[in-house]
Amino acid sequence: MDRTEEGGVHGYTPDKDDYLKRLRRIEGQVRGLQKMVEDDKYCIDILTQVSAVTRALQSVSLGLLEDHLGHCVAAAVAEGGEVAELKVREASDAIARLVRS
Amino acid sequence: MDRTEEGGVHGYTPDKDDYLKRLRRIEGQVRGLQKMVEDDKYCIDILTQVSAVTRALQSVSLGLLEDHLGHCVAAAVAEGGEVAELKVREASDAIARLVRS
Amino acid sequence: MDRTEEGGVHGYTPDKDDYLKRLRRIEGQVRGLQKMVEDDKYCIDILTQVSAVTRALQSVSLGLLEDHLGHCVAAAVAEGGEVAELKVREASDAIARLVRS
Amino acid sequence: MDRTEEGGVHGYTPDKDDYLKRLRRIEGQVRGLQKMVEDDKYCIDILTQVSAVTRALQSVSLGLLEDHLGHCVAAAVAEGGEVAELKVREASDAIARLVRS
Repeated sequence: MDRTEEGGVHGYTPDKDDYLKRLRRIEGQVRGLQKMVEDDKYCIDILTQVSAVTRALQSVSLGLLEDHLGHCVAAAVAEGGEVAELKVREASDAIARLVRS
Repeated sequence: MDRTEEGGVHGYTPDKDDYLKRLRRIEGQVRGLQKMVEDDKYCIDILTQVSAVTRALQSVSLGLLEDHLGHCVAAAVAEGGEVAELKVREASDAIARLVRS
Repeated sequence: MDRTEEGGVHGYTPDKDDYLKRLRRIEGQVRGLQKMVEDDKYCIDILTQVSAVTRALQSVSLGLLEDHLGHCVAAAVAEGGEVAELKVREASDAIARLVRS
Repeated sequence: MDRTEEGGVHGYTPDKDDYLKRLRRIEGQVRGLQKMVEDDKYCIDILTQVSAVTRALQSVSLGLLEDHLGHCVAAAVAEGGEVAELKVREASDAIARLVRS
């Protein structure tokens, strides 16, 4: 099975509803940020709120990554060979992007 | 004038429309993330997209911070005294939250 | 074999000399920072140099992590069971510390 | 007075000894990392230690930045004009490098 297949089963699939709930909350927080700017709120208060949204997104990333390591990467590693190497490299690149963003 | 006053003039006021536009785009990106999860997209592709949203938020923060330093903090420093110190400390705390988030 | 065993073979073992060389260069950079402070160099120039050291350390972390995923975690996953889960969790925690530091 | 002048008085000057002490401790931590690699310590333990060094460096940066805002930038802002704008821009660029590193 190709784990990268769109619409397939992924590491995060069992927690899909939880991720959707968190992303909807984040969407609400971003709308809240717009309202703060519209209402001319104090810059530092907006910054504090942006940091909260960033942390919430980071937490989603870390969750997805753990699910990914425990399922997609683990499955590829169990098969071994080039695919395993490719998956580890791909996950490492995603971690690097996460660390540097 | 109290620069922390809600509904007052802030460093970001002249660029308010630009910030609102960027925040609306970020809201759209977060909705895009929800769609990716709903459509069972590949974990790594979702992670890449989350990093893009995080960077967009960071860029909003850095812009707000620069506006804040150049206006609110500058004004407080020009007045001098305790208020100046307080504003520098407050900005430094916001920077620390940004760096650590 | 217990991969966590001290003095054992780890993912980074084949690249040990390279990691040592990079860490020695980082040590030199930190000494350079001390010299900058002693010589009363301009704050912004010191900050630029601190960012360079931080990025060099991050790059060491990302390398160690990739080696770890490709070896220790991969080996544990191949064995399966509780150890596999534990290793994935442990690696995810390390990634979270990295992202948040 | 040109605040960017080498060997001049900077925001961090009163705390110079404290910064030197912290940087020497960081140098010791980096040597400790080399020893961990030489002794084939477990990857995750090395990663934990790298995160500690990164946080210590970040804390030095945040301190230098606060001193810089409260002195060099404040002085430039008090003088006003182009120099003030330049200093705010320069500090903002340093903050951006810090946030993104």
